[in-house]
Amino acid sequence: MTRHILLMDGPDGPGLIYHVTSILFHHGLNIIRNDEYVSPDGRFFMRTEFEAGPQPAGNAGNVPDGQTILDELRTVLPPDVTLRLNPKAKKNIVVFVTKEHHCLGELLIRYGFDELDADILAVVSNYATLQPLVSKFGIPFHYISHENKTREEHEESVLRTLAIYQPDYLVLAKYMRVLTPDFVGHYNNRIVNIHHSFLPAFIGASPYRQAYERGVKIIGATAHFVNNDLDEGPIIAQNTQEVDHRHTASDMATMGRDVEKIVLSQALKLVFNDRVFIHQNRTIIL
Amino acid sequence: MTRHILLMDGPDGPGLIYHVTSILFHHGLNIIRNDEYVSPDGRFFMRTEFEAGPQPAGNAGNVPDGQTILDELRTVLPPDVTLRLNPKAKKNIVVFVTKEHHCLGELLIRYGFDELDADILAVVSNYATLQPLVSKFGIPFHYISHENKTREEHEESVLRTLAIYQPDYLVLAKYMRVLTPDFVGHYNNRIVNIHHSFLPAFIGASPYRQAYERGVKIIGATAHFVNNDLDEGPIIAQNTQEVDHRHTASDMATMGRDVEKIVLSQALKLVFNDRVFIHQNRTIIL
Amino acid sequence: MTRHILLMDGPDGPGLIYHVTSILFHHGLNIIRNDEYVSPDGRFFMRTEFEAGPQPAGNAGNVPDGQTILDELRTVLPPDVTLRLNPKAKKNIVVFVTKEHHCLGELLIRYGFDELDADILAVVSNYATLQPLVSKFGIPFHYISHENKTREEHEESVLRTLAIYQPDYLVLAKYMRVLTPDFVGHYNNRIVNIHHSFLPAFIGASPYRQAYERGVKIIGATAHFVNNDLDEGPIIAQNTQEVDHRHTASDMATMGRDVEKIVLSQALKLVFNDRVFIHQNRTIIL
Amino acid sequence: MTRHILLMDGPDGPGLIYHVTSILFHHGLNIIRNDEYVSPDGRFFMRTEFEAGPQPAGNAGNVPDGQTILDELRTVLPPDVTLRLNPKAKKNIVVFVTKEHHCLGELLIRYGFDELDADILAVVSNYATLQPLVSKFGIPFHYISHENKTREEHEESVLRTLAIYQPDYLVLAKYMRVLTPDFVGHYNNRIVNIHHSFLPAFIGASPYRQAYERGVKIIGATAHFVNNDLDEGPIIAQNTQEVDHRHTASDMATMGRDVEKIVLSQALKLVFNDRVFIHQNRTIIL
Repeated sequence: MTRHILLMDGPDGPGLIYHVTSILFHHGLNIIRNDEYVSPDGRFFMRTEFEAGPQPAGNAGNVPDGQTILDELRTVLPPDVTLRLNPKAKKNIVVFVTKEHHCLGELLIRYGFDELDADILAVVSNYATLQPLVSKFGIPFHYISHENKTREEHEESVLRTLAIYQPDYLVLAKYMRVLTPDFVGHYNNRIVNIHHSFLPAFIGASPYRQAYERGVKIIGATAHFVNNDLDEGPIIAQNTQEVDHRHTASDMATMGRDVEKIVLSQALKLVFNDRVFIHQNRTIIL
Repeated sequence: MTRHILLMDGPDGPGLIYHVTSILFHHGLNIIRNDEYVSPDGRFFMRTEFEAGPQPAGNAGNVPDGQTILDELRTVLPPDVTLRLNPKAKKNIVVFVTKEHHCLGELLIRYGFDELDADILAVVSNYATLQPLVSKFGIPFHYISHENKTREEHEESVLRTLAIYQPDYLVLAKYMRVLTPDFVGHYNNRIVNIHHSFLPAFIGASPYRQAYERGVKIIGATAHFVNNDLDEGPIIAQNTQEVDHRHTASDMATMGRDVEKIVLSQALKLVFNDRVFIHQNRTIIL
Repeated sequence: MTRHILLMDGPDGPGLIYHVTSILFHHGLNIIRNDEYVSPDGRFFMRTEFEAGPQPAGNAGNVPDGQTILDELRTVLPPDVTLRLNPKAKKNIVVFVTKEHHCLGELLIRYGFDELDADILAVVSNYATLQPLVSKFGIPFHYISHENKTREEHEESVLRTLAIYQPDYLVLAKYMRVLTPDFVGHYNNRIVNIHHSFLPAFIGASPYRQAYERGVKIIGATAHFVNNDLDEGPIIAQNTQEVDHRHTASDMATMGRDVEKIVLSQALKLVFNDRVFIHQNRTIIL
Repeated sequence: MTRHILLMDGPDGPGLIYHVTSILFHHGLNIIRNDEYVSPDGRFFMRTEFEAGPQPAGNAGNVPDGQTILDELRTVLPPDVTLRLNPKAKKNIVVFVTKEHHCLGELLIRYGFDELDADILAVVSNYATLQPLVSKFGIPFHYISHENKTREEHEESVLRTLAIYQPDYLVLAKYMRVLTPDFVGHYNNRIVNIHHSFLPAFIGASPYRQAYERGVKIIGATAHFVNNDLDEGPIIAQNTQEVDHRHTASDMATMGRDVEKIVLSQALKLVFNDRVFIHQNRTIIL
């Protein structure tokens, strides 16, 4: 019994759910889970999981394949509706790091036990610091120093490396370099970053230092898609941690690392399971 | 433009969403929000909000009324599916208290500013303590002492008072009396209680004392429907609060009151907005 | 047996704890609770609760009074150490509101049951909206409209009203007016505000609207002292609430109200119990 | 400049803080941080961090060593006060696992980057499952199967292995075997366990299954010392995670793993930094 996932978004209008469920019903397909959302500005989003029910003997040939379903949906749905059926179950990713190990360690352990819903094809870093950790897990590590290079030259090198792997997503697991719009444009809505603050508080550098100086009582972390404005992309997941006056900026950084790695993992799980839509710089998670 | 709410539950089967959306579509009705859930043991739950779109001039008569929709749904849905269309928008409730004011105060303030999605018809108490508070809000207060009465006699008095008001729900806002199965049977799945612990931890009396003695680091509160086993009914909402070794049982009780009143209010909002289904002693919240 | 509270702060140096405990020990006074903190920039803060132990018969006269203790401490402590002994147990406050009732309602209920550790002398508002609520609790309500007045004229009227009450603290319980530095200067470190965001995110107006547009997954509220920069004063307490894409700015405002009122109450409890020191625009809470 | 840590507990009485601070003051030692707690039943706990201040030239010999300070404290403090000065900074531990990797992976990564405040001498397991993970980090793995052995025989084997390492603490990082009182007696208050529920809810086996069936809205995890009653030892740290009706017992287990590993790490940090006292089956964390 094959499980299918249908992702759909477009301008809202009458009958969208009806048209989809009608086609599925007439093929004897069971909806396992269905989530919809209509944004206040009138865009419709739907994620549908369905599967063929038990077939009568000798009847398996009657279960339509994905392309047939997609073709039928196309005939009844407005042309400006975007449809995706059965996105790749396991994504290919390249992880970017600088010197901090906590997010990378988390991803490697999960990957090592097949819990990541993704294959880590390689790790890219502008420092060699984390090579020993990565090598424990038998994953290629590309040390691409940014020294004595312009930002464009460095990104050029990185892009050449990425060309080998053709990843579905880039994961910035504490990669402390700002990316150019040109680089981001190559992986539009396919770069996930973990920012070490509760965005939009403390945008930019040294957020724990900023948090300490402002005297906040709660710190946090934010996983988000990267777009052309630093720390301004669509937020996928956030979480927080209480602090008090006794915590120095350094204590906050230590405590924050636990939040960062868990939030990043949770966000990636949502993204890799095709549960995240993007609209108007906001995520819709179905 | 009238907003309708359809609540539906029954054994899962093919086409349930299709049949409903088909009827709505053919009447030109727009689905605003639709939530479904299928339990692991195969029961289907759906909550659908829909409304008539803008009608062409002179065409208002074409919008079907609720009964018409319900009748049509009946003809296509299996007979063991339960349907409720447009439950009463504002519930009538009676609030039960003993001596503690914090949950009652919360409900009265919300009621006073029309935020409760319910009308408080009366307050019943086995003590007179909270009469002055209730009288500030112009609500009848029934002091029904349990002294010198058997449990049955006391409940008999309470039931006679309730007979005046015919409430949709009873809210036990820190009512420190155990109800008999007979009493509960009169208001099946219509009694909401706030319990001052994170159930199922610390069932029964003095939960903060128990929490202190066990040395827990987090306390909580639980809003649940009442059934015949004390503190065992379906849970609607829970929340927690960190504590440490410095907090005495009495400190925990003070801190817990803030959690209790907010959890009770949040649970009531869900119940009064017809978002809560009950199945196998668990709540499904759509 | 009288409980004393000693508050002390000054430049750190050797023997500060020793000098205090020495004097208390030699008078037979028991330390019930003692909390200290030394800031990274070398300032010492201490809050000590102590009381006389059981006295031998006929010996009560040996227990020193507060002034004696204070005088002795003065002789051994450096002159730049600030000492406060036994601050007023119950503060006098005036509450400021505009049109929203939730924080005010919370304070009134707590005050009505003597849980606020403060006396509400009066409520001041630039609208008449909440007069009926306040009058239920028998508290003077001063409606001082800002219409047809300059900011200075309006504040002048407010100050004249405050002169009647001589409050220890002003509580801005959703008072939607910006105060001038001149006004704030009259109540330095004695004005507590509740801001409806997780500061420093969403400073200024319409934070829930801003939060919705930024697509955050968690909202919050912040209680802080007011200084001359809007929303920039020392933070006392913060709390948060998860949201998702389904929540409109208006939903967030509704959910946020529960957070706001609890955070404000918790902050006031800390302030009124003399547990809050201010240093470098940060609070130290002992 | 050496930092010292003094741990002290005993019956409360006048002058305890005074006596300690007096000796430190007269030796020119600076208190960096001092935390005390007196339990309601009258036991005093204190943790003091202190260090020698800058010494005048040629005067370093005047700084007393730890033993001198301890001897002096002994002469002024009551004999039933327990004193520990400068406990070992880095503990030696042996980690116990069964088949689940998440807590072990967390500990290994932290250990690999020197963040654990402990040395992992070895990992013991009743299954071979996690050997490959452990071997990546160059740590001895002892596979001691419980099959065809009585509980006593199995524990005998384990104890013989532990005799090689003489660990300070045992960490049960999802070790799914019940320990006998005899075994526990060898490591009294030195065994830390992570339990996959918010204790005391769901004591015993399959807590996520129990949580699912009870329909709770929040799950949790608890790190605690092990004593002779299963899941009844002193709680060190707890944390929680919201769930809803859509989460199966298996989903809860997956989500719970993130909570478990973080709570275990946080508890170990407290224990290894000598911040945890035990009294009456409760922890006092200073």
